[in-house]
Amino acid sequence: MSGTPSLNEFDRIARYFAPLARSAKGAFGLTDDAAVFDCVAGEEIVVTTDAMVSGVHFLPDDPPDLVARKTLRVNLSDIAAMGAVPFGYTLVTALPRALGGPAGEAWLERFADGLRSDQEAFGVTLLGGDSVSTPGPLMVSITVLGRIPKGQAVTRGGARAGDLIFLSGTLGDGALGLRVLQGGLAGLSREHQEFLADRYRLPRPRVGLGPRLTGLASAMLDVSDGLVGDLKHIAEVSSVAAEIRIDRLPLSAAAWAAIEQDKSVVEAVLTGGDDYELLFTAPPSRREDVIAAAAEAGVPVAEIGRIQAGKPGVTVLDLAGEPMTLTAAGYVHF
Amino acid sequence: MSGTPSLNEFDRIARYFAPLARSAKGAFGLTDDAAVFDCVAGEEIVVTTDAMVSGVHFLPDDPPDLVARKTLRVNLSDIAAMGAVPFGYTLVTALPRALGGPAGEAWLERFADGLRSDQEAFGVTLLGGDSVSTPGPLMVSITVLGRIPKGQAVTRGGARAGDLIFLSGTLGDGALGLRVLQGGLAGLSREHQEFLADRYRLPRPRVGLGPRLTGLASAMLDVSDGLVGDLKHIAEVSSVAAEIRIDRLPLSAAAWAAIEQDKSVVEAVLTGGDDYELLFTAPPSRREDVIAAAAEAGVPVAEIGRIQAGKPGVTVLDLAGEPMTLTAAGYVHF
Repeated sequence: MSGTPSLNEFDRIARYFAPLARSAKGAFGLTDDAAVFDCVAGEEIVVTTDAMVSGVHFLPDDPPDLVARKTLRVNLSDIAAMGAVPFGYTLVTALPRALGGPAGEAWLERFADGLRSDQEAFGVTLLGGDSVSTPGPLMVSITVLGRIPKGQAVTRGGARAGDLIFLSGTLGDGALGLRVLQGGLAGLSREHQEFLADRYRLPRPRVGLGPRLTGLASAMLDVSDGLVGDLKHIAEVSSVAAEIRIDRLPLSAAAWAAIEQDKSVVEAVLTGGDDYELLFTAPPSRREDVIAAAAEAGVPVAEIGRIQAGKPGVTVLDLAGEPMTLTAAGYVHF
Repeated sequence: MSGTPSLNEFDRIARYFAPLARSAKGAFGLTDDAAVFDCVAGEEIVVTTDAMVSGVHFLPDDPPDLVARKTLRVNLSDIAAMGAVPFGYTLVTALPRALGGPAGEAWLERFADGLRSDQEAFGVTLLGGDSVSTPGPLMVSITVLGRIPKGQAVTRGGARAGDLIFLSGTLGDGALGLRVLQGGLAGLSREHQEFLADRYRLPRPRVGLGPRLTGLASAMLDVSDGLVGDLKHIAEVSSVAAEIRIDRLPLSAAAWAAIEQDKSVVEAVLTGGDDYELLFTAPPSRREDVIAAAAEAGVPVAEIGRIQAGKPGVTVLDLAGEPMTLTAAGYVHF
């Protein structure tokens, strides 16, 4: 926690963040230069970092507890996508000067509440971090650490011709939720609007499913940039072609309702981001094992296509089995 | 690296950052969700995070390579202050939109050059990270990971009455360097000015000395908030009193010259930040071992005072052996 204090850094850490580190002996109550944690023989450590900027990755009036939880969860999703089990994280907050006064106290309290509730939900604990002030917008950066048995990490590079392509949960809810929050999809019922908005604001990282797929999945990632863009990442790193069938895509009732009102929404579903579902490949011989792992984790998994030999890329087949043409290849901010 | 791409995130990562991760097999060329590294039986992992904001922690016109190296080095200093050996780091860059075009390319190239040169100097490698855009000022956040034999981490809480207080290198150069860069200390020679400015811009983390002090030092930290403020941290966490003698403080020739011109500079030396020297305590029986460790590391170490039983706090004795009164207790930004 040393290095770059601002006026109330020490108080801020003691009041809001140190309680979040209480269960980690090696965090030393956030009073030391660094945190220490155990190495377990036969294991590897997995580390990932994601940052979020107000007005770019979340809306400036999003509730502080949701900002905290979303930033933590997108990182937990990355850990799950390696097949690892998360255990701790470090946190950087850059707070605008407007949050220096009493408004900042209230903001930090709700922010810490969000972290506390997700620490309990996901079994992770704060290990350390830094809290700085900025003349710019609020920014939160989190680094999550996880454990995995040696050699078991599932990368993006292991997909082989003949492998099946699977997707957890439902697709497109995050992208449609952002539209709702921006005033779009006004024809949907309030219930569907709220469902979609919630899916954008609060991802469900598949921490139960990811570790159950080690030894089964040949390649895996979490869908953060859109199904087509992310599947392209697997195809490129694995040097294979991927073919998915649009009729196999798992959609929520709210997404179906949105498509019924406007067919062009299909494209947002295929290329929109922020779903944080697990996209993975596995040999056909392991299909039953994948289904069993999904059942154990209590997460629905759909088989949506197949890996082919050929030039790296993604083909989406329409209802007639014909390749579709997409204008956007992935999710891009702004 | 997933989660929050901006327009050119993938290109940016491939061009500037992936080469920095080449030597880490578990970084997967920065194409995956997370990085993986080995656990070694009998070791612990040490983790620390520090962030720097343009205009707050460095000057907006500081050269990009120095911004990179300073952010990395303040983190390396925290790892050294635990007695650990750093091996890898994750990096978050939040780039203002002005750096989106060709100016950004040049900036990133020099920034990556700085990281490359310090990776070689300190034996660390990039493991992963995130690159986002921001409407605010440039911000860089680094999380460094290190290794240490189990149970050997040196915390702030182990100082005992009777222990000697040691400080590596020289004191106050960082704070005086900031004054020079802000147009102060105009009476100094150009050589002294440049020495001090360089010490502010580019800390020398004591990565060689820190690990040699495990088993010797009873408490340790790196001086980032000022000698008095940081010694107070040790005193408070260890529940002891600390007494230092002003005639024992190790000063550079440039700092002596500054004091000769203006006696009030002494206070900046005592309470200014950004030195990143190791401040530690050890029992008198280990004095010779400390001197030997310092000689091995090639780093000067001065004995500057003694730990006493009593109310936690810091006393600075002047040349006559009388307690001095200080107006500032530590280094505060803005």
